[in-house]
Amino acid sequence: MENKKPLILISNDDGVRAKGISELIKFLRPLGEIIVMAPDSPRSGSGCALTITRPVHYELVRREVGLTVYQCTGTPTDCIKLARNTVLNRQPDLVVGGINHGDNSATNVHYSGTMGVVIEGCLNGIPSVAFSLCSHDADANFEPAGPFIRSIAKMVLEKGLPPLTCLNVNFPNIDEIKGVRVCEQAKGVWKHEWESCARMSDPNYFWLTGSFTDFEPENDRNDHWALANGYAAITPTIVDVTAYGYISELEKNCKEAGL
Amino acid sequence: MENKKPLILISNDDGVRAKGISELIKFLRPLGEIIVMAPDSPRSGSGCALTITRPVHYELVRREVGLTVYQCTGTPTDCIKLARNTVLNRQPDLVVGGINHGDNSATNVHYSGTMGVVIEGCLNGIPSVAFSLCSHDADANFEPAGPFIRSIAKMVLEKGLPPLTCLNVNFPNIDEIKGVRVCEQAKGVWKHEWESCARMSDPNYFWLTGSFTDFEPENDRNDHWALANGYAAITPTIVDVTAYGYISELEKNCKEAGL
Repeated sequence: MENKKPLILISNDDGVRAKGISELIKFLRPLGEIIVMAPDSPRSGSGCALTITRPVHYELVRREVGLTVYQCTGTPTDCIKLARNTVLNRQPDLVVGGINHGDNSATNVHYSGTMGVVIEGCLNGIPSVAFSLCSHDADANFEPAGPFIRSIAKMVLEKGLPPLTCLNVNFPNIDEIKGVRVCEQAKGVWKHEWESCARMSDPNYFWLTGSFTDFEPENDRNDHWALANGYAAITPTIVDVTAYGYISELEKNCKEAGL
Repeated sequence: MENKKPLILISNDDGVRAKGISELIKFLRPLGEIIVMAPDSPRSGSGCALTITRPVHYELVRREVGLTVYQCTGTPTDCIKLARNTVLNRQPDLVVGGINHGDNSATNVHYSGTMGVVIEGCLNGIPSVAFSLCSHDADANFEPAGPFIRSIAKMVLEKGLPPLTCLNVNFPNIDEIKGVRVCEQAKGVWKHEWESCARMSDPNYFWLTGSFTDFEPENDRNDHWALANGYAAITPTIVDVTAYGYISELEKNCKEAGL
């Protein structure tokens, strides 16, 4: 008898024991068969990093009806590559990253291991969605996001996504989310990014930190605005990063430069 | 007296002792004042990863007229963040990543630490260019790429780049490069990505490996084609990854899904 339930592959960057991923499993279990391959410890800020200089190891940690959980020693991106090539016997219907403990809107999309999960799914032609909550609290309250997460995942299972396009979904850390807004990536920069933690007489030790400055704080199309105003932000995201609009001018410049 | 020479910030992902970065320094020294902040050991496949769970440390390793070299314990992206916030007293005129030992064309753009360098420069409004050679040989021959690298860097110093746009430049590993082509990111997938390296009775150890399958091998606009046919590929790359073309359809789908 063929298994007709959708196959949903889940990973994250906070590690297999984070509250966010167990909440995500809870919200998505009614929608299909869940396979988890997640890092064995936190990997925040991994982006699309790969493990190159040592082997990656995985192991089964839990198996019950409708849910199988593996952990591995790799990055979030490794997790998706590994699951697809080892434990899965068919292409997943959906790849989901999260729920991240922390905001992945705006330029964070580039640093996010949660998006690393989803970009990897997307590059392989699988509809892929990242979910993040704007709270770093280990015991954050994911309940208000739950109904939205289930509806968005259901929508993507039904409608699919265009080629080379995935979703980056962020939730404000509030009890009453006003609704969802389809957004663009906020334009801005990180400032004050290092905090000194001098060791004895050596001042050159720093912790990464910082605050995001939004260049267009009044632009109600941007994801940073949506979150600041109580909405969930759905930012459709492309993985073909060619700057098509600049090709002809660049060709002209190259010609003038004798290239 | 004001220093009028362009300030060029260089980093890479193969580490400060790689041949590729010393060749890059050699090619670019005639163009300006060079500051290097590079990882103290190889960080291939770092993407835009950040160092979150421990402090980052840097130290001066070399200083002479027109060239200052630092190494740090962070990722390629950390290097640019750290240099901008600590050792530099003004915004660089150019950020350059490389020369990478290995191909960063096609979907590799997402995994590349060399592109991590350049994306970070670009997000901060600095014209930024990544250079890579299609050879993993530690003693690869970068000479044929030298004149192109200097001309491309000079062109970008003179003409700048559009906002949120950087360049991903890849060279074929041949003696006679036919010229440059402005390209799009090749569409395709990585296959056969894991090689078993079982340890005693545990079969679940794997090395990351693989081969790239180009979905459009005859498309002479793509960077993979250019490299396979003897050309340097310049792929203009955007860091605003919003899928603008999908926003209105996604809004419609959300509405229909009751979101």
